Amino acid sequence: MLEYETRLRVRYAETDQMGVAYYANYIVWMEVGRTELCRSLGIRYRDMEAEEGILLVVAEVHCRYLSPARYDDEIGVSTRIAGANFRMVTFGYEIRHIAEARLLAKGETRHVFCGRDFRPRKLPPKYHAFFGIGVK
Amino acid sequence: MLEYETRLRVRYAETDQMGVAYYANYIVWMEVGRTELCRSLGIRYRDMEAEEGILLVVAEVHCRYLSPARYDDEIGVSTRIAGANFRMVTFGYEIRHIAEARLLAKGETRHVFCGRDFRPRKLPPKYHAFFGIGVK
Amino acid sequence: MLEYETRLRVRYAETDQMGVAYYANYIVWMEVGRTELCRSLGIRYRDMEAEEGILLVVAEVHCRYLSPARYDDEIGVSTRIAGANFRMVTFGYEIRHIAEARLLAKGETRHVFCGRDFRPRKLPPKYHAFFGIGVK
Amino acid sequence: MLEYETRLRVRYAETDQMGVAYYANYIVWMEVGRTELCRSLGIRYRDMEAEEGILLVVAEVHCRYLSPARYDDEIGVSTRIAGANFRMVTFGYEIRHIAEARLLAKGETRHVFCGRDFRPRKLPPKYHAFFGIGVK
Repeated sequence: MLEYETRLRVRYAETDQMGVAYYANYIVWMEVGRTELCRSLGIRYRDMEAEEGILLVVAEVHCRYLSPARYDDEIGVSTRIAGANFRMVTFGYEIRHIAEARLLAKGETRHVFCGRDFRPRKLPPKYHAFFGIGVK
Repeated sequence: MLEYETRLRVRYAETDQMGVAYYANYIVWMEVGRTELCRSLGIRYRDMEAEEGILLVVAEVHCRYLSPARYDDEIGVSTRIAGANFRMVTFGYEIRHIAEARLLAKGETRHVFCGRDFRPRKLPPKYHAFFGIGVK
Repeated sequence: MLEYETRLRVRYAETDQMGVAYYANYIVWMEVGRTELCRSLGIRYRDMEAEEGILLVVAEVHCRYLSPARYDDEIGVSTRIAGANFRMVTFGYEIRHIAEARLLAKGETRHVFCGRDFRPRKLPPKYHAFFGIGVK
Repeated sequence: MLEYETRLRVRYAETDQMGVAYYANYIVWMEVGRTELCRSLGIRYRDMEAEEGILLVVAEVHCRYLSPARYDDEIGVSTRIAGANFRMVTFGYEIRHIAEARLLAKGETRHVFCGRDFRPRKLPPKYHAFFGIGVK
């Protein structure tokens, strides 16, 4: 399965007055995970957007928070393609605390392939293999 | 039902290079909605935290994105208590474009009542009515 | 002098583990102040950008922090045009705590008028009066 | 001189509708630079805060923006201690585009050593050498 783990450290900016990482930042880290999964597979998402005009417009996000992360903690974001067809792709994520091997959060995001006009658009064949479409 | 709509404008900071509000900001706007729902009901969430030591630790977030929001759009965040018991509360949200009466997103967040040590803690009785617990 | 105060509340997202508003958020609030100053003067900054292709590209920011702001504090951002010519504009800001009439921060941002290609561009005459250029 | 460069990639979240990194994010990257400078010198800033109760409360920030950064660009943040005494420390930053060896921004932040009560506090001697105080 296509899966890649990228690492980052919790920034001071990402903490809140509870002393832990604010919940919306996990949703940002998912985006970092997607970008790095793409890079690990040989595609830069920014080229897809800039050269092909294909946007991955987010349709849904879900996250379960299991344990808090703190400033300066090293975090691993494991991202995989959980499903894809010509019209949409679902990414799955596991976010964990590296030093303590503790699962912090699990989630998914679902995206619709769109053109620059934000209208749905079929994914061009050259990207099918990348997203695991039509692969048995 | 307990429901309150607060309004805000999409900040330039909240846009991304697609020219629309970045998806994690909806999750922030939900927090703004919760704060203002509490205020409308006569409780400041910050007092609950500072004086009672009760934290609403987020356990789950879900959001479906229906239509994009753009810089300077006026947005309404309708927040309601979708369910609550002694241990947790679920808020529901509808985010809409004021001028166009267009629904932008719908979502829920689920929170566990915790003490300052992040351990679950029963909600003190003085807040039961506020969260609609035990109200028939 | 052209000056306008807009108000906002410190979001939970904007706090950090010190329990106060994180310093980069003041820089965001300055942007909110600029947007609302423009609106108060009858121009939407987003129209300038979308219709005229004029971007206010930031060249410099300076902020002195005098006193901390906390979650849910109501904040006033007073914005004025501190100087302008055909090529650039400087905005000045005072950020204060409404309830306590306490000055929180003072700052300036300097912007170069640019086209969509990020190259400097003379401000069209129709906007001169707006920025106080050529006004005695 | 004490100087350290840390690297990061511009996140999609950090872009705005101009298609470049939003200006307040440079101020966040400075914080990342400070944290990593400290780590490179053998001190974790979070330990200073958690164990010693010493906060580096920001008093001033200044940034000049020279060239824009875009999504997925690799950025280097060079951080140095530009000056320090018992009461305050000034950090200097240069932010550059790695692939193009292009300087993106230069800035400084000034911080006052404070206790948890946000009142100024003399820096304990054990940290003097770290900040280059009293070193000839």
